[in-house]
Amino acid sequence: MKIAMLGSGFIARFYASSLHAQRRKDSICTVYSRNIRNAKRFADDYHLPHFTDDMELAISHPDVEVVLISLPNHLHEMAVEACARAKKHVLCTKPLGRTAAEAKKMLQMVEDSGIFGGYLEDLCYTPKFLKSVESIQSGAIGRVLWTKSREAHPGPHSDWFWDKEKSGGGAIIDLGCHCVEIGRGFIGKNIRPVEVMCWSATQVHPIEAEDHAIGLVKYANGAISQFEVSWNFRGGMDLRDEVMGTEGTIWINGFLRTGFEMFSTGKGGYVAEKAESNSGWLFPVGDEAHELGYPNMFTDMFEAIETGRKPLESFYDGYIVNAILDAAFLSASTKNWEPVVIDDWRGDEIAESGEKFTSYNEQYYLIKEEILPNGDISLILKDKKTGEIVKQNRK
Amino acid sequence: MKIAMLGSGFIARFYASSLHAQRRKDSICTVYSRNIRNAKRFADDYHLPHFTDDMELAISHPDVEVVLISLPNHLHEMAVEACARAKKHVLCTKPLGRTAAEAKKMLQMVEDSGIFGGYLEDLCYTPKFLKSVESIQSGAIGRVLWTKSREAHPGPHSDWFWDKEKSGGGAIIDLGCHCVEIGRGFIGKNIRPVEVMCWSATQVHPIEAEDHAIGLVKYANGAISQFEVSWNFRGGMDLRDEVMGTEGTIWINGFLRTGFEMFSTGKGGYVAEKAESNSGWLFPVGDEAHELGYPNMFTDMFEAIETGRKPLESFYDGYIVNAILDAAFLSASTKNWEPVVIDDWRGDEIAESGEKFTSYNEQYYLIKEEILPNGDISLILKDKKTGEIVKQNRK
Amino acid sequence: MKIAMLGSGFIARFYASSLHAQRRKDSICTVYSRNIRNAKRFADDYHLPHFTDDMELAISHPDVEVVLISLPNHLHEMAVEACARAKKHVLCTKPLGRTAAEAKKMLQMVEDSGIFGGYLEDLCYTPKFLKSVESIQSGAIGRVLWTKSREAHPGPHSDWFWDKEKSGGGAIIDLGCHCVEIGRGFIGKNIRPVEVMCWSATQVHPIEAEDHAIGLVKYANGAISQFEVSWNFRGGMDLRDEVMGTEGTIWINGFLRTGFEMFSTGKGGYVAEKAESNSGWLFPVGDEAHELGYPNMFTDMFEAIETGRKPLESFYDGYIVNAILDAAFLSASTKNWEPVVIDDWRGDEIAESGEKFTSYNEQYYLIKEEILPNGDISLILKDKKTGEIVKQNRK
Amino acid sequence: MKIAMLGSGFIARFYASSLHAQRRKDSICTVYSRNIRNAKRFADDYHLPHFTDDMELAISHPDVEVVLISLPNHLHEMAVEACARAKKHVLCTKPLGRTAAEAKKMLQMVEDSGIFGGYLEDLCYTPKFLKSVESIQSGAIGRVLWTKSREAHPGPHSDWFWDKEKSGGGAIIDLGCHCVEIGRGFIGKNIRPVEVMCWSATQVHPIEAEDHAIGLVKYANGAISQFEVSWNFRGGMDLRDEVMGTEGTIWINGFLRTGFEMFSTGKGGYVAEKAESNSGWLFPVGDEAHELGYPNMFTDMFEAIETGRKPLESFYDGYIVNAILDAAFLSASTKNWEPVVIDDWRGDEIAESGEKFTSYNEQYYLIKEEILPNGDISLILKDKKTGEIVKQNRK
Repeated sequence: MKIAMLGSGFIARFYASSLHAQRRKDSICTVYSRNIRNAKRFADDYHLPHFTDDMELAISHPDVEVVLISLPNHLHEMAVEACARAKKHVLCTKPLGRTAAEAKKMLQMVEDSGIFGGYLEDLCYTPKFLKSVESIQSGAIGRVLWTKSREAHPGPHSDWFWDKEKSGGGAIIDLGCHCVEIGRGFIGKNIRPVEVMCWSATQVHPIEAEDHAIGLVKYANGAISQFEVSWNFRGGMDLRDEVMGTEGTIWINGFLRTGFEMFSTGKGGYVAEKAESNSGWLFPVGDEAHELGYPNMFTDMFEAIETGRKPLESFYDGYIVNAILDAAFLSASTKNWEPVVIDDWRGDEIAESGEKFTSYNEQYYLIKEEILPNGDISLILKDKKTGEIVKQNRK
Repeated sequence: MKIAMLGSGFIARFYASSLHAQRRKDSICTVYSRNIRNAKRFADDYHLPHFTDDMELAISHPDVEVVLISLPNHLHEMAVEACARAKKHVLCTKPLGRTAAEAKKMLQMVEDSGIFGGYLEDLCYTPKFLKSVESIQSGAIGRVLWTKSREAHPGPHSDWFWDKEKSGGGAIIDLGCHCVEIGRGFIGKNIRPVEVMCWSATQVHPIEAEDHAIGLVKYANGAISQFEVSWNFRGGMDLRDEVMGTEGTIWINGFLRTGFEMFSTGKGGYVAEKAESNSGWLFPVGDEAHELGYPNMFTDMFEAIETGRKPLESFYDGYIVNAILDAAFLSASTKNWEPVVIDDWRGDEIAESGEKFTSYNEQYYLIKEEILPNGDISLILKDKKTGEIVKQNRK
Repeated sequence: MKIAMLGSGFIARFYASSLHAQRRKDSICTVYSRNIRNAKRFADDYHLPHFTDDMELAISHPDVEVVLISLPNHLHEMAVEACARAKKHVLCTKPLGRTAAEAKKMLQMVEDSGIFGGYLEDLCYTPKFLKSVESIQSGAIGRVLWTKSREAHPGPHSDWFWDKEKSGGGAIIDLGCHCVEIGRGFIGKNIRPVEVMCWSATQVHPIEAEDHAIGLVKYANGAISQFEVSWNFRGGMDLRDEVMGTEGTIWINGFLRTGFEMFSTGKGGYVAEKAESNSGWLFPVGDEAHELGYPNMFTDMFEAIETGRKPLESFYDGYIVNAILDAAFLSASTKNWEPVVIDDWRGDEIAESGEKFTSYNEQYYLIKEEILPNGDISLILKDKKTGEIVKQNRK
Repeated sequence: MKIAMLGSGFIARFYASSLHAQRRKDSICTVYSRNIRNAKRFADDYHLPHFTDDMELAISHPDVEVVLISLPNHLHEMAVEACARAKKHVLCTKPLGRTAAEAKKMLQMVEDSGIFGGYLEDLCYTPKFLKSVESIQSGAIGRVLWTKSREAHPGPHSDWFWDKEKSGGGAIIDLGCHCVEIGRGFIGKNIRPVEVMCWSATQVHPIEAEDHAIGLVKYANGAISQFEVSWNFRGGMDLRDEVMGTEGTIWINGFLRTGFEMFSTGKGGYVAEKAESNSGWLFPVGDEAHELGYPNMFTDMFEAIETGRKPLESFYDGYIVNAILDAAFLSASTKNWEPVVIDDWRGDEIAESGEKFTSYNEQYYLIKEEILPNGDISLILKDKKTGEIVKQNRK
């Protein structure tokens, strides 16, 4: 497909490198930047035929089949509106909006104009995440009870991200959007997020927004989804996910410990995004873009457009993420659990019951079965009627 | 020292193995159990000269210098009372009480009677924890911003622990007591814990108490301490701690990933406490008791008694832990942040201010300094007066 | 590019999955198999327009621009000959030949006929390997002293691989070809491999060939390259590389520990190539093909063909690998260090000197400088003239 | 027990710290050093009642029950001789001798005089090693096929160790002694080591001895034991062991990756023995002495003396280790496999046969059984009579 890139900053470059790699048939044909020199430099670096500082022009270029928004958060809505007017398919970087209200307007625009709206949530396309979700769906770890997604690093690259007006928030909006959607993916997107408790603080940086937050999202089926986000982390980029299920466990380290370790006295060059040092023990990532999900993401998006199916991550998902983050921001200020307000819920209405106790026999529930050091089997049981807890040993 | 052991169950055996190992000069001289056969079996196994089913007798035995309480939680208070009456030094397993009120009574008893009251919080004596605290105190990771302590496994060994009346709760009381005190240790025991937010649920087991909980403890200096506890974890015993500081990071894996990996088709025997399998990839622990802190704990306790100094973990610490857990239980039911009620606070009264922003020059605060792939240094600054955020590049 | 696939077995399927993924512009247009039903099944699975059991027909198909040999080892030479006759570019799976003599004939054929000869050594295209080599070339770990490459698993998938006549050997030919070329890549392909010492044995499997071998390859510059290969490993597929340099260290875990851990009681499905179990702790790989280097390999090959440059791995490299393996087989039987016989060496003729001692001052060489626990700096020096070793402490 | 310490250097301090820790009943009562000031400083640091620069005096002190030799290698023989004369039990640090001849004389002396001769091979007492050996003996990994023990760091602390005359060699004698005995422990001490192939080089340091070596030790039962030793490693102290068995695998990381990770910008102090840096990612060890086996080693030695049993590591073991190292040194210079010369072999004479092939049914041996991605079971079999290899699929 032919792509118009809106924006020429850090994330636009990461996207472009993935799009133009590995003999893909898609290509960027024009780039827009507010600053024409940046546009030209970008076009030169990626061998693009066109560049411009007129957004409408980029979008309406006759070759362009899909528009890719890589702009600061406060410019997403305007850019989506322009795509909708021009009837060009649109892919938008994360977060979709600064608020659910903003995201909902964007969702409305793409649905009203009949264009494709893909949500570029790359971390839901990492090889590890995709294989995990597949395993969960195949039943490998049973019923999901808890998920944790953590993203922490020493803070974003771009200046506008430190400005709350433009970004919509701090670590919650920057990193929380990933974590919240990862949690949804593990638990099941058809399950409704119900309420959120969040703590946040500005611990280190001289900014208005939060640089550290922890939140809990409760789902209708009793599962709990935890996010941990920080711009105060030292040591690189910490991307970790965990899932607890009734039949198993998943631990993912997405960036800082991937089986690649290097010690150097310091004579090398650039090792990894957000690494803080070039000496001592370093943990480079083999293929950063692939580990971060970009290639899989674009493959899904373009195949979805071509075949008329939905992508794994749509504007609707972006809207739900913003709704959860809205509740998180509110909770951080009210210090209460706050409901997730979703006007337009499209998933399951009735929650699965989370309570299925294991029956041992007619009289007892099974609390625990364990093999002791001496080989005996220890059973802890609960009487279904009296509630009494008893212990039995079996050879 | 000569020790009377009260209790003959799982934890008593772990203690005894540590006490009688490595040519230590201390020894258990009598054991009390409610069941005389268990007492005899224990005495036989550890070559003790005496055993009894009369607790007073065990405590008052003339050889006994110190009593070690390894009884179910609901019997701690009574046992401490007996020690106080007999004026025998006492060490009590964790948690100290089922509630802060109960713990406070025990604290009062030992202080009134002038006996030594050691709190057997083994996980604050693991080699990794002790060295971490030392590093933090030497400034290696700067100001502590956040700690996380996680303990999760498939549930306790003993039947009484599944009975809320006897234990005082579920995973919060069983595992949370460790995690909360680990957090205090990292942050500094002189810093007052202020309030707690806790989520808990009974997700899997047919019990009254919670089998899963997550909590946040806010400290007077702005640090936040997270605990994650569960009896629903599959895969062994998950003991992990993390600390984020302004100048560094600590990650501890205390049990399940300690540099010891084994694959077996299944022909071996007992591999590790709470391992769920004897085949596939297994992660044994070299010296379980040592990794769990028992030897260091008893060394500290006995040396403290002999030299008249305080132990690292005293009944006062046990009381603070119970106060934090009380707030956690309350929060889990009210869904609010709940204050930590400490009638008798002995630490610092005035909080350190957590906000120290880094000045870049007269005009600006430094938000971020970063080396870009091309070698440039990118600076993100905030104007001290106008609050404007600017970006500068330096070659 | 349009590809003819020769072979329809395990490796052909791995290749085809990579070639037809991620919106690549290249495609397989025909498949040859000795068994027409296998050819048809393969064509169906990958939506190919053609299939055949006539190899010449597949190669000479007018659409075909490049032929990909995925046949058993004993059929490589014949297939390369057919490509040379048809003047079609050829990519050949590893090892190139069963012996250096065979490989040399193939090299000769492609060079004489002017076609492109790409050697499909995928493990020299893994993201981790490519980034490591880049780091080494940038000087990050100084002068390379030692490399180790290890590949071990429970044995190959295909029956012919267990038959020495068809395969050319056992674990040495199957796995050693990877390890030897990885070592060359770390040390530098311009450095001549000089001699080899190898131990091998048939320890477990009822076969003629070796199922376990360890070898040392000495290079002209004094570097040593170790390979460890086995079909007797239990626990999955063990792919690890290590490099020691004067200024640093590299440790790569290519498959079994990549930051993805799962525990399951056993209700899932296929987890990873060569995993031995579906329960217990499992270590899946996010994107197996990518971690094994296939996408990068095909990108390099096709770009090399299109631009007329050499690929990273050519038939010449395949020939050198076979020459080293010949010496390894010979050494395993003679029990001596055996020279690597290369009639046609195209790299550097003069070895770099490996001995550059560090001067401390005019009088001394520096043996070691170390910071002691008490903060002192301990120096161990050697007198340049007398050879005497002295120790000095500096505050 | 009452101990005389001979030597006051690095290793003597490590020993003393372990001996005087954890409320052990044993104690050092005197220390000998060639330099009286060092002796006094040592005595002060460890609160010893006596110190001297007269070795005989230290040994013959009436309180002394056991002598602990912590002297440079070239002084071991003389010190053992003095103990034998004085009829005092003796524990000697590793390696026992510089050569097997020297070790054998020492063995003879202790046996002739009837004193206890303990060989202080600490790395055969680490918690991980002891538990591994126990697992192997219980059959958890089947028949041992291969072991690897690796010790590498940036070189020893003491000046004399860099002097070949005093030490007896370089990395082989310093580190190889550990690795060789670890291999024996895994394979079984009753199995005779038969021959050795070794490569060594002086790659980096301006010394006469080797600073890097790799060796293979072949045992009578077909098992192979690999050692990798180097003084050229960068990044800390690399202590790793691996074992391959027919039914399983063991991987031990003894020091550099033990579940304890720290990132620091550099404000801390001493982190770990042989760490090369105080900033970046660091990998401290919780309890260095315990991880290195000292406490378990002394416990075994003193209990062996008190109960009249043999220790796990005796002078005889030290002699065998030296015999293997002699063969390694010889092989490194002749470039041939060299026999291990043991005049006085006390283990099994007849080797177990290493070849036990698995029968599938009357007609076939089983080469391999594997579950394919589609769920089929693939069998590779070998005809017992014809040797033909066939493949069968089972649903």
